[in-house]
Amino acid sequence: MSTTLKRVKCNAKQLNIITTLFNCKAVCKYIATKMANSKYEYVRHFEKHDSCLPNCWIIVRVDGKAFHRFADAHAFTKPNDVNGIKLMTRCAHNVMTEFTEMVLAYGQSDEYSFVFKKETQAYKRRESKLMTNVASLFASSYVFHWPEFFPNVKLLYPPSFDGRVVIYPSDQNLRDYLSWRQADCHINNLYNTAFWALVQEGGLSNKEAQTRLSGTFSSNKNEILFSEFGINYNQEPEILKKGTILLRKEIAEEVTITDHKTKEPKSVTKVRKKIEAVNCDLIGDTFWVEHPYLLNTVGTC
Amino acid sequence: MSTTLKRVKCNAKQLNIITTLFNCKAVCKYIATKMANSKYEYVRHFEKHDSCLPNCWIIVRVDGKAFHRFADAHAFTKPNDVNGIKLMTRCAHNVMTEFTEMVLAYGQSDEYSFVFKKETQAYKRRESKLMTNVASLFASSYVFHWPEFFPNVKLLYPPSFDGRVVIYPSDQNLRDYLSWRQADCHINNLYNTAFWALVQEGGLSNKEAQTRLSGTFSSNKNEILFSEFGINYNQEPEILKKGTILLRKEIAEEVTITDHKTKEPKSVTKVRKKIEAVNCDLIGDTFWVEHPYLLNTVGTC
Amino acid sequence: MSTTLKRVKCNAKQLNIITTLFNCKAVCKYIATKMANSKYEYVRHFEKHDSCLPNCWIIVRVDGKAFHRFADAHAFTKPNDVNGIKLMTRCAHNVMTEFTEMVLAYGQSDEYSFVFKKETQAYKRRESKLMTNVASLFASSYVFHWPEFFPNVKLLYPPSFDGRVVIYPSDQNLRDYLSWRQADCHINNLYNTAFWALVQEGGLSNKEAQTRLSGTFSSNKNEILFSEFGINYNQEPEILKKGTILLRKEIAEEVTITDHKTKEPKSVTKVRKKIEAVNCDLIGDTFWVEHPYLLNTVGTC
Amino acid sequence: MSTTLKRVKCNAKQLNIITTLFNCKAVCKYIATKMANSKYEYVRHFEKHDSCLPNCWIIVRVDGKAFHRFADAHAFTKPNDVNGIKLMTRCAHNVMTEFTEMVLAYGQSDEYSFVFKKETQAYKRRESKLMTNVASLFASSYVFHWPEFFPNVKLLYPPSFDGRVVIYPSDQNLRDYLSWRQADCHINNLYNTAFWALVQEGGLSNKEAQTRLSGTFSSNKNEILFSEFGINYNQEPEILKKGTILLRKEIAEEVTITDHKTKEPKSVTKVRKKIEAVNCDLIGDTFWVEHPYLLNTVGTC
Repeated sequence: MSTTLKRVKCNAKQLNIITTLFNCKAVCKYIATKMANSKYEYVRHFEKHDSCLPNCWIIVRVDGKAFHRFADAHAFTKPNDVNGIKLMTRCAHNVMTEFTEMVLAYGQSDEYSFVFKKETQAYKRRESKLMTNVASLFASSYVFHWPEFFPNVKLLYPPSFDGRVVIYPSDQNLRDYLSWRQADCHINNLYNTAFWALVQEGGLSNKEAQTRLSGTFSSNKNEILFSEFGINYNQEPEILKKGTILLRKEIAEEVTITDHKTKEPKSVTKVRKKIEAVNCDLIGDTFWVEHPYLLNTVGTC
Repeated sequence: MSTTLKRVKCNAKQLNIITTLFNCKAVCKYIATKMANSKYEYVRHFEKHDSCLPNCWIIVRVDGKAFHRFADAHAFTKPNDVNGIKLMTRCAHNVMTEFTEMVLAYGQSDEYSFVFKKETQAYKRRESKLMTNVASLFASSYVFHWPEFFPNVKLLYPPSFDGRVVIYPSDQNLRDYLSWRQADCHINNLYNTAFWALVQEGGLSNKEAQTRLSGTFSSNKNEILFSEFGINYNQEPEILKKGTILLRKEIAEEVTITDHKTKEPKSVTKVRKKIEAVNCDLIGDTFWVEHPYLLNTVGTC
Repeated sequence: MSTTLKRVKCNAKQLNIITTLFNCKAVCKYIATKMANSKYEYVRHFEKHDSCLPNCWIIVRVDGKAFHRFADAHAFTKPNDVNGIKLMTRCAHNVMTEFTEMVLAYGQSDEYSFVFKKETQAYKRRESKLMTNVASLFASSYVFHWPEFFPNVKLLYPPSFDGRVVIYPSDQNLRDYLSWRQADCHINNLYNTAFWALVQEGGLSNKEAQTRLSGTFSSNKNEILFSEFGINYNQEPEILKKGTILLRKEIAEEVTITDHKTKEPKSVTKVRKKIEAVNCDLIGDTFWVEHPYLLNTVGTC
Repeated sequence: MSTTLKRVKCNAKQLNIITTLFNCKAVCKYIATKMANSKYEYVRHFEKHDSCLPNCWIIVRVDGKAFHRFADAHAFTKPNDVNGIKLMTRCAHNVMTEFTEMVLAYGQSDEYSFVFKKETQAYKRRESKLMTNVASLFASSYVFHWPEFFPNVKLLYPPSFDGRVVIYPSDQNLRDYLSWRQADCHINNLYNTAFWALVQEGGLSNKEAQTRLSGTFSSNKNEILFSEFGINYNQEPEILKKGTILLRKEIAEEVTITDHKTKEPKSVTKVRKKIEAVNCDLIGDTFWVEHPYLLNTVGTC
C-alpha cells in the first residue's frame, strides 16, 4: 500500500528531521528533483499508467517486421531456413536469461512468445516497459548473434520486431494461447512444405502452386507430398513441425567443493536452472504433466 | 467508416459472386482463414485495442536500459563519449528513414524522442506497434552500426532500450515536451562536466565530487568550472549542451534532365527531403520560426 | 471471429443480390447510414474501446456521493438508519432484476457491489455501459422507491452515485474483494456504534468522542460499549454488522397446470429463480459451500 | 507534482512530529487506515487508473436506455413530446448546477452531452467518476422532476441512462462533435415528422410509412410534408429542429445594498452566472462568435 504526498513544502531542517525519522528516500528524491526544469515538467502527466492486471499470465509476443523481404534479401532457404530458426532461438535465449521471471518461451517462423509468471513484478508489470525491453533486446541480439549462424552472409540492414502484451487470467487460457501458436506453426509449415515442393521439385510457378493448394485440407497436402514427391510429412524434423519451446530445467550436478571443517574435497549435488530448448507437442496434456512446475507458480492471491 | 460482418456463411459459388461484385479481399481472406485453428482462436480477443487518440502529436521515446553499466563495460569517455552520441544519432537516422511520418527527433544522453505528425496513420496509430517497432529498430541499428563508431572496441553484449508512447494535444504541449528534454540535457551535462572535472582534474573521489556539488545552482557549477579548471562552459560543444535535433530539410538541387520535346538536356530544380542533424536551441521561438513547416502539418480536423 | 469491410461501394441491384445471398443486416445498415451527417461523423473515432478482459469476474460498485450531507439533510437516524439501508437494498434488487447475468450483490453503508458472472456478454463487457447503466438505474430507483421507505420525509434533492468497474481473474480474488467490503462494514459499524453511544448517551461532543476512540482496537470499542452503555455488540442486528447479500435462489414451487392429454388439472414442481436478501458472513467458507453455484458458472474457457 | 511514500513505519510520537511539521493529512490518513482489513486490501490494486488526457475537452454523453419502450409505456406524444424534452433539459440543468466546470450542454431526443472545460480537474479527470456521477444524477433528477412535467401521468418504473466519456484535443473537434449531434437531431426530427404525418394524418401503417420514406432525401421529406399535409418544416418549433443548448450566461443585475460608510442604500451592478437554455443553430460560426468565452477558457498549457 502507498499513499501520496502533495504540495509538501519544508525547509532544510525539517527535511533533515523527516529523513532521519523515516529514512524515506522518496521524499529526499522528491526535494532533490525540484529543479529549474519544473516549468516544463507538467508534460510528464500526459503519460499513461499501463500496469497489467494483477494475477494474470503476461505474454509478450515479438514478430519480425517484413520478414518475407528480409528472408529474400538474405537468401534464406525455402521453405525453412534452419539457421534462421536457430538464430531466433538464440535471441530468445538471451531474452530469457535477462528476464528471470519468464517461465517459458515458444517460437515458430519469425515470431516468439514469452510467458511471464502470473505474479511477476518485473517493471511493475508495466506494459510499455515489458514489450519494448523484450522487443529491443530480441532485435539487438539478432544482429549481435547473426555472424554465428550466417558466417558467410553479410547482414544488409538491421531488422525490427513488433511486440505486444496479452494477458490471460487462467491456466487454460494460457495453454490455449500456446496451442493456438503451435497449431498455426503446423498449418503454415504443412502449407509451405507442399508449396515449395510444387515449385522447387514440381516445376510449378508460385501462382500455379498457390492455385493447386487453394481450398485443400491437411489430408490433401499430405497426399500431394507423399504421392508426388515421396515426402512423408510426419517424418519432417520436429523443429519445423512443432516449433521451439524454451524452458528452465532444473539440472542436478555433481560438483566438488572443499569441506569447511576437514578441508578435504567432497562431492555434493547442486541444483541449478538451465534454459533448454525442446521441440515437442504442447497441445496435449503430456507436456504439462511432465513439467508440472510451469503452471504451479505460487501467486500472491 | 467500416462495418463488421459476423457469422457469414456461404458456399464457393456465393463467394465468387460476392467477390466479383465487391472485389472485397477482406471477405476472401476471412473465408480462407476459417481453419482447424479456430478452436483456440478465441484467445485473440484478449488483446487490447490501443490506438492513440486522433488529432494529437505522438511521441515515442526510447531510453537505453542500464547504460551506466554499458558505458563502463565499453570504456566510454567521461563525461561524454562523442562517438557514443554519434552512434545514437545514426540509429535515430535509421528510424526516421523507416518512419516517413516522423517530422522530428531529439536526442541527448542515452535517449531519443521521435515525433510523429498529428495526423499520422502509421500502424493505425496503435501504441504497441509504434513503440516496439521504433525501440527494436533503434536497438538493432545500435549493434549494426557499432563498428563504424567504435572500430576498435568489441561489443560485449547487445543492449536493450525501453520505449514509451506519449501523446500531446497541442503544439504548445509538444514544444514544452521538447523543451523539457533539452533543459534536462543542459542540467545533466553541466553537472557531469563539473563532476568529472573535479574527479579527473581536481583529484576528488566520486563521493567527494558529489558532496561538493550537492545543493549548488547552475551559477555555482559554472564558477567552479571557470575558476578552478579554466573551463568556460558556454564554449563547450553545442552537441553536448543542446543535444541533437534531426529534421527533414527540403533541399533544392539543380539536376540535368532530357527535355521531352527538344530532346536537349536542360537544368531543373528538384526539391527532395533530407534528414539533417542540428545542435541548436529549441526552447526559444527562433527554431520554430525558422522551421515553420514542423508544426504546420495539415490534420484531418 | 469477424472481419472488416472497407470502402464497399455498390448500386442498389448489387445490394439486393448480396443481402439476399447473405441476409446480412450489417451491410444493409451500413449502406443505409451513409448520410449527410458523415462530414462530422469522424468524431466517433475518438471514442475508446473499453471492453473488460474476458474470463474475469466483473464487479460494478456504486457509492453514494456526499451521503453524509444527504443523511443529515434528511435526518437519518444515527448511527444507522434501517429504512435507508432497506431502500438501498430495494434499489439493488431493481438492478439485479434488470441485469440477469449478475450472480450476487453486496451492500453496506451507502455502497453496493454487483457481481457479473465471468462469462457475461452484457453490453459486450463494455466498462462504460456497465457502470453507467448500473449507477443510473440505482440512482433513479432511489428516488422512485423513496416514498415507500420514507413516507413522511420529503426528498429534498436527487442524490447521485459514483460507479466503477473492477475485474478479478480468480474466484479467490472475488472472494477477497467481497471479504474486504464486509470487513470494512464491520470496522465502520463498530466504530460508529461506539461513537454515537458516546455522543448520544455519553454526552460527549463529536470531537471528544473522536479523541476517545482514536487509536483504539476492536476489543477496546467492544469494552466501551459493554461496560459504559451495556451494549453487547455481538447482539446487534446482523443487517448492521454484516451488510446485505442479494442472491438468486432457486425456489421449487408446486403449481397446478392442465394436463395436455387428459385435460385434467395436475400438480407439478416448477423451479424459478428469486432474488433473496441475506445478512450473513461471507468471509468464511460456509457461505460458499452452501451456495456452490455462485462460483460454478461455466465459462467459455 | 507528487511523490509516493512506501513502507513508512513510525510510532505515535514520530507521527505527531511529522504531522505537526507538515500538516500532512495524507500521512495521517494513511496511518489511520492501517487496519485489520489489510489482508484483503490488495484487491484495490486491480482498479484501473483512468484519468483523461490533460489539455483536452471532456464530453460526457448520456443516452436513455430503451426509451422507445419508455415513451410508449408513458404514452408520450408522437413524434415529439415537448414535456419529455423539457424534463430532459430540467435534468441537464441540475447536472450543470452541480458540475460548475461544465461550460455547455447540448440535448436532443433522449440524449444530452455535457462539455467540461479543457483544464477541468473535476474528479481528477477520472473517467469513471465523471460519467457515473453525471449519468446517475441525470437519472435521479428525471424521477425527481417527473411530476412537474407529467403531473397526471404515473411514472411506472425508474429509467436508466447509459453514459460515456469522449475527449477532444482541439476546439474544432469539439465544434464538430456538437455539429454532429445537431445534424443528427435535424435528420431524425425531419424523418420522424414525416413518418408520423403519414401515419397519423395519412392513415398509413407504420410499415407503409417506413417503406414510403425509405431511400428519400431531405428534400423529398420536406415535399411530402408540404404538399400532402400542408406542413412547412421550416416553421416547426426550433426546440424540435435544433435541440437545446444550455450555457452559463453572465447576467448584470442592479441590486440595492447598504453602503459601508454612509449606511445608506445604494444601487450597484452585480454580475452573476445563470444557466440559460437556447434553441439555435450551433453548426455555423454565429453561435461561437456570439459566445466567445465558450472556447476561450485559459488552460494550464
